[in-house]
Amino acid sequence: MSLIQVIPLGGAGEIGKNCTAIVHGDDMIVVDVGLSFPNEEMFGVDIVIPDFTFLVENRAKLRGIFLTHAHEDHVGALPYLLQMVNCPVYATEFTHAMIRNKLDEKLGTKGLDLRTMAPGDIVEVGSLSVEPIRITHSIPENCAMAIRTPHGIVLMTGDFKFDFTPVDGKLTNINRLAEIGKEGVLCLLSDSTNVERPGWGPSERAVRDGLYKAFISSPGRVLITSFASNIHRMQQAFDVAHETGRKVAVAGRRMETTVELCSRLGYMQIPRNTQILLKDVGAHDLDKVVILTTGSQGEPMSALVQMSKEEYSRLRILPGDTLIYSARPIPGNEAAIWRTINRLFRMGANVVYESVDPVHVSGHAYREELKMMINLTRPYYLAPVHGEPRHQHLYLEMAREMGYPENRIFMLQDGLPLCMDDTTAWIAEPVPSGRVLVDNSGTAGISDEILRDRSNLANDGIVVVTIALDMERGEIVGDPVIQAKGFSGSSDLLDEASGALLEALAKLTESDIKDIDAVRHTASDVLRRQIQRRAQLRPLVVPTVIEI
Amino acid sequence: MSLIQVIPLGGAGEIGKNCTAIVHGDDMIVVDVGLSFPNEEMFGVDIVIPDFTFLVENRAKLRGIFLTHAHEDHVGALPYLLQMVNCPVYATEFTHAMIRNKLDEKLGTKGLDLRTMAPGDIVEVGSLSVEPIRITHSIPENCAMAIRTPHGIVLMTGDFKFDFTPVDGKLTNINRLAEIGKEGVLCLLSDSTNVERPGWGPSERAVRDGLYKAFISSPGRVLITSFASNIHRMQQAFDVAHETGRKVAVAGRRMETTVELCSRLGYMQIPRNTQILLKDVGAHDLDKVVILTTGSQGEPMSALVQMSKEEYSRLRILPGDTLIYSARPIPGNEAAIWRTINRLFRMGANVVYESVDPVHVSGHAYREELKMMINLTRPYYLAPVHGEPRHQHLYLEMAREMGYPENRIFMLQDGLPLCMDDTTAWIAEPVPSGRVLVDNSGTAGISDEILRDRSNLANDGIVVVTIALDMERGEIVGDPVIQAKGFSGSSDLLDEASGALLEALAKLTESDIKDIDAVRHTASDVLRRQIQRRAQLRPLVVPTVIEI
Repeated sequence: MSLIQVIPLGGAGEIGKNCTAIVHGDDMIVVDVGLSFPNEEMFGVDIVIPDFTFLVENRAKLRGIFLTHAHEDHVGALPYLLQMVNCPVYATEFTHAMIRNKLDEKLGTKGLDLRTMAPGDIVEVGSLSVEPIRITHSIPENCAMAIRTPHGIVLMTGDFKFDFTPVDGKLTNINRLAEIGKEGVLCLLSDSTNVERPGWGPSERAVRDGLYKAFISSPGRVLITSFASNIHRMQQAFDVAHETGRKVAVAGRRMETTVELCSRLGYMQIPRNTQILLKDVGAHDLDKVVILTTGSQGEPMSALVQMSKEEYSRLRILPGDTLIYSARPIPGNEAAIWRTINRLFRMGANVVYESVDPVHVSGHAYREELKMMINLTRPYYLAPVHGEPRHQHLYLEMAREMGYPENRIFMLQDGLPLCMDDTTAWIAEPVPSGRVLVDNSGTAGISDEILRDRSNLANDGIVVVTIALDMERGEIVGDPVIQAKGFSGSSDLLDEASGALLEALAKLTESDIKDIDAVRHTASDVLRRQIQRRAQLRPLVVPTVIEI
Repeated sequence: MSLIQVIPLGGAGEIGKNCTAIVHGDDMIVVDVGLSFPNEEMFGVDIVIPDFTFLVENRAKLRGIFLTHAHEDHVGALPYLLQMVNCPVYATEFTHAMIRNKLDEKLGTKGLDLRTMAPGDIVEVGSLSVEPIRITHSIPENCAMAIRTPHGIVLMTGDFKFDFTPVDGKLTNINRLAEIGKEGVLCLLSDSTNVERPGWGPSERAVRDGLYKAFISSPGRVLITSFASNIHRMQQAFDVAHETGRKVAVAGRRMETTVELCSRLGYMQIPRNTQILLKDVGAHDLDKVVILTTGSQGEPMSALVQMSKEEYSRLRILPGDTLIYSARPIPGNEAAIWRTINRLFRMGANVVYESVDPVHVSGHAYREELKMMINLTRPYYLAPVHGEPRHQHLYLEMAREMGYPENRIFMLQDGLPLCMDDTTAWIAEPVPSGRVLVDNSGTAGISDEILRDRSNLANDGIVVVTIALDMERGEIVGDPVIQAKGFSGSSDLLDEASGALLEALAKLTESDIKDIDAVRHTASDVLRRQIQRRAQLRPLVVPTVIEI
């Protein structure tokens, strides 16, 4: 019997690397191909992408990739997937514009099949069809996806909020959502990340007041940091600057590229005579300047973090400057962000942030908005995604309060297919899934073993011991050489360990010595034990035996 | 002319390692000797303590150490300081009881001069006198310190909140604070950490409602995690458990020790027949059990974190269990804590935390309470401590709103003395100060170089190359041996690098080879460049040259 499968490969039980496959018979589509950022235990990892094994194994079925919007956690892994599969990529004009550079950079001139879709279009792909629906979020041209299947509609909200005064005036197509609800939604996959927040979230436009207050009351320059993709935030900064007689410069490569691209394509309207070059900031009075800058997540190489360390040659922080922190820390970045903010305070700057003034709002639906979405679309099955287990759990509690019985709500998890036929729904056996760690060289697939070694190296350092063996004579030649890096033990400790090693080696017989592995073993054993006994330290001990 | 110096050695411009010296002529006292926890860049560091150089250099003047309360950020570095100086240590009975074990452990039988003080006492120390004043906080017997000097009173609030319904009924001695205000406070050093929170904070007793709701509504066992030192939180857990017919067991060494100590000394009153042993939990119905557990900061070895990984042999999490997260993450620990909570959700447990239900309150004064303290004590000079620069900055803004002129408010910083004489106050030249990093072996003083190496090792791993030299002949013997740890490059890459190295070594003359340093240099240079060029990786390259 035919069934429809919804297979999250990322984003179910986590925030980040959103990627979902929808399979019906011989047809498969993928919605979003996002990345996530490493946690503090993933040493030397730059980004994390989904394990694409399932998609690669089923590439013959793959009819298209659909992108809801241009945030990295929805599109960032696309260049990696497109190295393994080839199929049309559907997205709005804006989303395509935002990702094209990176695709070109990673994939070179390889023929990409990018296809533009717009809200209202219906894209037929085999036995499935996909209808993007306009919905508000913190980036332009964001879409929910209504996927029609022979069993009913799978509606993916993507990231959303109900913003009735969006900065670009482009409202959510609520009527269409209601129509689709009436038509009959089999399953709603909903954003759940803000389920902990009661009520209804403020409009993006609410930020204007916070910006305005800072722009008119700050005695010096105003710096604003935000996500570079938050076009509407930057638009508002330009607008308020224009109103208050300030000029705007942009600092930070990513922010510069985005402003250039968006104003060229008409996604931003920069008021006349408002933008200036960063190098010309000095020609204006301090209280007539605004600087948009990268660094809202405390990224070490970002313009803002470098300014806070007096390492940014293009701009120096001055006493009297005000930074507007117009963002929220991604969990794990808090400490780095506060360090940056504190350094700015120490330099005599003022910093305005969310708990002090309304200079940031979330792009995601609060609790009552999530309920509104359920009410509008009246899905039969309900499955929260784009949330950690805690968010999914609270969302399901909310669904129960709204009357959903247990057999109609699902706590999805990456790799576990949600299967639906005409009568029932169930979670099937896992498909290959997981995380793939990518480092800044672009190499994908840093192993757990490497991570374990790095963790060990980070915490305790390394001790390298080298022994030369004369294999013919079965003799150790010269003294072992011991070197340490990142190791907090004293040189006395190493000398002592070296002494113990010499003693142990002296006890080896000629035939022992001819067994290189045994010598290596003895060396690392003796050193490890000696160092631990004397100083409770546990460095990685690496013995090298060289034959001569 | 005589003057009074207030010298923060920790806790000014940071949250943690509180330690302040007060100097008048030949007399010095120290208030608090705290530790702080490492940030994510301090690999392999267990705790951070103040640099005590200034105290050691001036130990002849040191008349006494005064402890405001028993939290680690106020007492945790005492064992380290007492290895370098010897003087009386004044604290309340409770504080002494809480720290005695650790002092005995670190300092052995060395004669400690612990002296008990109680609120209302006046301790004369040379030309200074110290009066502890009872003030509420999240631990029993917390004291503010009124230090009388020939120039007036320096009043240190220590950590505080104004709790009018404290769990132990012991109210802040507000009358005494008012009297001292009338007598004339020269300078107030105030807690500032919650200045961002408007209004007046809730009483510790407010947590009772959150606990009660969870205890009566949870279908299974209730686990509670909190700081082990939060005696009043645990007292309330016992009380509510008794009321709702649940038995209480304790899991986690630190929590067990504290409950045992506090109930023995009368700081906790455990209701009759309420406490049970962890091993006996199974004998009770699931909905009749409460478990107090360590792990509120996501510490890897804590009971809670081990439970969440199914690695805690004494207790298994069951579906239907409820965890009350009765704490707030210390910045930097958020990610680890949410991982733990999410694992519990995945195991079928429910988790209740501050943003869902009122199961935690802060121990620190909110904005209006901070103003009340200023109003009560009417200090001439004002200097916020126990805060990061952002908190100090907002506190000073608040002081300005209250009418304080610039010359009477100070943004203190560790190591910078605040000097006051009869007419004025100023910040003097720095004294030695800073942070000392201690690892879990107890060794103090992990250097920046070691941290840099560890960071490099953590992110890129290490490549070790070993070359054997015959010095007499000026020849390289055998092939170089290359080993890598925590390195994400392929073995092909290493083979290639090895080939390049052989080529480079072949070009060395006999006399080049006799210069060991040059060989070492060549080896690390060639490998580093080759690896970077081919794979954009930057491992630490450690060459070892062994002479035979």
